[in-house]
Amino acid sequence: MFQRIDHVGIAVAELEPALALYAEEFGVELVHRELLCNGGVDAAVLSAGESQLELLAPLVGGTALARFLAKRGPGMHHIAYQVDDIEATLATLRACAVSLIDKVPRPGIRDSLVAFVHPSSCAGVLTEIVQTAS
Amino acid sequence: MFQRIDHVGIAVAELEPALALYAEEFGVELVHRELLCNGGVDAAVLSAGESQLELLAPLVGGTALARFLAKRGPGMHHIAYQVDDIEATLATLRACAVSLIDKVPRPGIRDSLVAFVHPSSCAGVLTEIVQTAS
Repeated sequence: MFQRIDHVGIAVAELEPALALYAEEFGVELVHRELLCNGGVDAAVLSAGESQLELLAPLVGGTALARFLAKRGPGMHHIAYQVDDIEATLATLRACAVSLIDKVPRPGIRDSLVAFVHPSSCAGVLTEIVQTAS
Repeated sequence: MFQRIDHVGIAVAELEPALALYAEEFGVELVHRELLCNGGVDAAVLSAGESQLELLAPLVGGTALARFLAKRGPGMHHIAYQVDDIEATLATLRACAVSLIDKVPRPGIRDSLVAFVHPSSCAGVLTEIVQTAS
């Protein structure tokens, strides 16, 4: 059901220093920038093989990401898996009594459809499923 | 320098329930089991595309992993990147004043050589570099 790791999300307070670190010192290539205005997130996507890193900085306070940073500091935020059919995957997860944060898909980065699954149903890992744009 | 994501490490208190969840409900295939006796870790490796998930449970108390779980609970523990030459990568990281937990490579899972980099030098992410067995 879950295919490859689409990306790992990393929460940072400020995007530019983290981007410089990963792109320039660690040699992980920047491939995309996007402002996710609805979620209040400034995002940078870096390519690490077939998976990606998503550096995420809050644009404003009071968002889920800003609260995460205030509570836990910067670090790993979520793991996202590519799925072929997000509606079918959500239906399967619901049938397994998995706790869904998003009961229906919503728009994600790069015109994808995404849904988040609660960490309590994923061994403590905030988990995202992603149906990439065709 | 950092190539593909080799694996994402997930800390869990007990391996079997987490393994059942990821393998049976999420359809992520178990490909390897290993007891890392030096580190006191019971590990299961699951395949998610070219990257893997590493479920890690402590065998005994008092280890770094047991302390992590006691402090933060289950969840994402580290991100590991494949590198071609771990000695050369460590030398480059040292030259960039990156804080290394392991100054020299040590044996990792599946006969790999690994070294950990301090989260303070990686935007809060405990980071592992892996030179896989040839």
